[in-house]
Amino acid sequence: MEKVVVVHSGGLDSTVLLYWLINKGHEVRSVGFDYGQKHQKELAAAAIVCSALHIPRFLMTIRPPLKGSALTDPDMTVPEGHYESENMRITVVPNRNMIMLALAAGYAISEGFGVVAYAAHRGDHVIYPDCRAEFRTAMQEVFNLCHFTPLKLEAPFVSYTKVEIVKIGADLKVPFSLTWSCYKGGSTHCGKCGTCVERKEAFRLAGVADPTHYSG
Amino acid sequence: MEKVVVVHSGGLDSTVLLYWLINKGHEVRSVGFDYGQKHQKELAAAAIVCSALHIPRFLMTIRPPLKGSALTDPDMTVPEGHYESENMRITVVPNRNMIMLALAAGYAISEGFGVVAYAAHRGDHVIYPDCRAEFRTAMQEVFNLCHFTPLKLEAPFVSYTKVEIVKIGADLKVPFSLTWSCYKGGSTHCGKCGTCVERKEAFRLAGVADPTHYSG
Repeated sequence: MEKVVVVHSGGLDSTVLLYWLINKGHEVRSVGFDYGQKHQKELAAAAIVCSALHIPRFLMTIRPPLKGSALTDPDMTVPEGHYESENMRITVVPNRNMIMLALAAGYAISEGFGVVAYAAHRGDHVIYPDCRAEFRTAMQEVFNLCHFTPLKLEAPFVSYTKVEIVKIGADLKVPFSLTWSCYKGGSTHCGKCGTCVERKEAFRLAGVADPTHYSG
Repeated sequence: MEKVVVVHSGGLDSTVLLYWLINKGHEVRSVGFDYGQKHQKELAAAAIVCSALHIPRFLMTIRPPLKGSALTDPDMTVPEGHYESENMRITVVPNRNMIMLALAAGYAISEGFGVVAYAAHRGDHVIYPDCRAEFRTAMQEVFNLCHFTPLKLEAPFVSYTKVEIVKIGADLKVPFSLTWSCYKGGSTHCGKCGTCVERKEAFRLAGVADPTHYSG
């Protein structure tokens, strides 16, 4: 049993990771970040899941939002289509993974937790430089050195596709309907942005019923 | 000439670094962090210096403050004495350097700046694990990988003592009286906390007049 801080956005992958770690018997805390994302609904989703699981949730807020991403900039439109498309590049939030992992590590240290886990997976896309394996390896080295005792950085889903994550979640009876993916921040999932397209596809390929209501 | 984001607390070291980089002809921006430190006066100091230099200042706020440091926790007293003392350990802010460098990198990427500089120096203390050379080397590798093009992390003062930094500052006519070090957050420097003791000593050993008003 380890004491694990989970970077938990409220989306599908990180919520499955939360359930997966609990199922393994670890003591788990959820951390999330309000970095000015339009899809604040993911934060509400994370809070609801944690409340249902009786897991402590720690939300950190960073202001002002960094410029240059369609996910935070009110003047930029969230693009529609598949992640592989070039136009998805504008959904990159500058250095988001390093920022979230650094803050999660700070929280872990302050609370005496020895592990930070996040839901990097095999389907993470080349358009996100901080999703590459080399980046993760370099972060693990930084985690080894940032505190008096080494901190562990774990990415248990790194060899799994999103389809496999959906299957794992189904086995663990994750309440998928409570999770939130859509970048647009509307009242229902748009069904057209990169993450909605990917979410739909993952359920379909996994052969798992998709409880999400998509508006498009 | 490079475009450099400077991690600038408003203290002595980072303010000398700001002047040093400007003197070298670089295009400079100042970034600072309100992480709930008691010594909010350093943030005002940084803003005044930037205003005098006509340098853009970007302040990021992180809430809530992380627990476990005397620098942020209202229930913990900032210790007095020399940095080398064991009781100074409670001034460590969990993972502060990784957090500040990660956010500074995010800002640099979003603004198209290629370098992040910070004022790590030879006098940084073993009680701060994230001031060690190995940590800095590991962070440089992460910076290489966090963006489409590598980002540079520079610590130009890393081989200098604080005494040497005071001498450099004096040569550059840094307005030392505008900088703020004291951790206690009073109206004047206390003269007794770790950073005040170090500041006093550095001026004395450098043979530079110390314009600081210490209350003790």
